[in-house]
Amino acid sequence: MTAANLDNVAVVLHRPRYAGNVGSAARCAKNMGIRRLICSGAGPFEREAMVTMATHFAADIVDAMEYYDDLRDALADFQYVVGTTARLGSARGPALTPREIAPRLAELSQNNRVAVVFGSEDRGLSNRALHLCHAVVTIPVSDAMRSINLSHAVMIVCYELFTAAVPPRGTFTPRLADARELEGMYDQIKEVLKEIGFLNPQNPDYWMIHIKRLLARAGLQARDVKIIRGICRQVSWAVRNGPRT
Amino acid sequence: MTAANLDNVAVVLHRPRYAGNVGSAARCAKNMGIRRLICSGAGPFEREAMVTMATHFAADIVDAMEYYDDLRDALADFQYVVGTTARLGSARGPALTPREIAPRLAELSQNNRVAVVFGSEDRGLSNRALHLCHAVVTIPVSDAMRSINLSHAVMIVCYELFTAAVPPRGTFTPRLADARELEGMYDQIKEVLKEIGFLNPQNPDYWMIHIKRLLARAGLQARDVKIIRGICRQVSWAVRNGPRT
Repeated sequence: MTAANLDNVAVVLHRPRYAGNVGSAARCAKNMGIRRLICSGAGPFEREAMVTMATHFAADIVDAMEYYDDLRDALADFQYVVGTTARLGSARGPALTPREIAPRLAELSQNNRVAVVFGSEDRGLSNRALHLCHAVVTIPVSDAMRSINLSHAVMIVCYELFTAAVPPRGTFTPRLADARELEGMYDQIKEVLKEIGFLNPQNPDYWMIHIKRLLARAGLQARDVKIIRGICRQVSWAVRNGPRT
Repeated sequence: MTAANLDNVAVVLHRPRYAGNVGSAARCAKNMGIRRLICSGAGPFEREAMVTMATHFAADIVDAMEYYDDLRDALADFQYVVGTTARLGSARGPALTPREIAPRLAELSQNNRVAVVFGSEDRGLSNRALHLCHAVVTIPVSDAMRSINLSHAVMIVCYELFTAAVPPRGTFTPRLADARELEGMYDQIKEVLKEIGFLNPQNPDYWMIHIKRLLARAGLQARDVKIIRGICRQVSWAVRNGPRT
C-alpha cells in the first residue's frame, strides 16, 4: 500500500489568541505532514513570536499561513470540514473521536480538500461555527482535566491523520524464527546446559521447560536464534579452554 | 465507560531544559489521566514558569513532581521502563510505535510501575540512558520535520496510553522483575559473556543491547531472573573447572 499524502488537508485556527500557540500548531502540522495553515477571525500575529514556537524548520508554514476575517470565507473552497470541540451537548450532535474519523479523512483528502477547525484557547468553537462543519470530533480526555492546550489538540488530530495516512512499516512485524530453527536452538541449549552442570542429566527437561516458555514469550526472530546459538557455542568453547579474562 | 486507571504510570523527563515544557508536560499528563511526573538530571525549575503552562488545573502535578539527580535512581523502583527517541540506528535496536506498545503498557501497569522516559529538547535520550530502558518507542513523524516539541511528544504517548487503557479486567498479570533485579542480572550476563569471549571488551554494549531487548520482550518475572542468573553462575563455574560431561 502506498502512503497517502495529506497535501489536501488544512488546519484552520478560528480566533486563536496567542501567537505562540499558532506557531506551535504550525510545528505540529508540519511534524505530521500537513502544510496548510489558516487563521480566521484573528491576527495578524507577530512573525517572531510564532516562529519562536514553530522553530525555523516550520517557519515556511507560518509564512504561508492564510488569514481570513470570517470562518465562512476561510472554509469556502473545502469539500469536507471537521470541527473540534471539548464540550458535548445535545445541540452539538454526536461527536466522533479523532481515531474514528482519521481513516475516512485521509481517504477523502486524496480527492477533496479537507479542513480541520480548532476554536480559541478559552472558548473553543461556538455552535454557530460548528454548524459550518460536516462532522465534529472530540478528543478523549480524563475527567480530571478536560481542557487541552490548543496546539496539543492540533497535534493529536494531525497525528491521527498522519497515522491513518501512512501504513505501518513492514519492519514492525518481523518474521519469527520457525519451529525447525527453534528446535535446533533448544537442542543446543540443552547440550550446553548439561555440559556446565546446570541440568540434571537424569531429568534435563525440568528446567528446559521453563527456559523454553521464557524464550517463547519473547517471540524470537531468526537473528535472536543466531545470537543465542552463538553464545552457546562460545560457552562450550570456553568450558574446554578456560576463561578469556 | 469506566475511568481508565493509569495510576502506576509515570512520565519521566530526563534533563529537560525549559520550565515551560515541564509545565506543559504536566498538563498533558493530567489531560490523559497520568498523575506522576518525575524530573531527573535537571531543575529545580521555577514554579511560576511551570504553572503558567500547566494552568492551575494541573498545578497539583507540578507540585508533586519528584526530582532526581540521576536517571538510574529515578527509575530504580519501576518494573518496566520505556524510552522515547526520534533517532534510530542499529546500535539503538528496533523501536515500536506508541500505538503498538500502549495496550501492553496499559495492561502491565495494572500490576507494575511503568515509566515512560523523555530526553531533553535538543538532544533527546543518549544511548546510555536508552540502555536503562526495556523498550524504545519512536513517534511516527513526517520526514519533512522530524523534531517534535517535548510536551507534544509527551502528549502523543500519554494520549495513546489513555486510549489503550481499559478498566482492570481482573485477569492475572504477573509481577515483573523490577529495574534493580534486571540491572543486576544484565551486569552478570555481561560479565559472563566477557569471560567466555562472546563480547568484545572494547565494545561490550554492541551485543548487550540486542540481548536486553530480546529478554525485555519476554516480560521477565523474578523467577526468570533467578533461572538466568543461575545459568550464568554455572557457566562461570564450568569455565574455570571444565565440562561436567
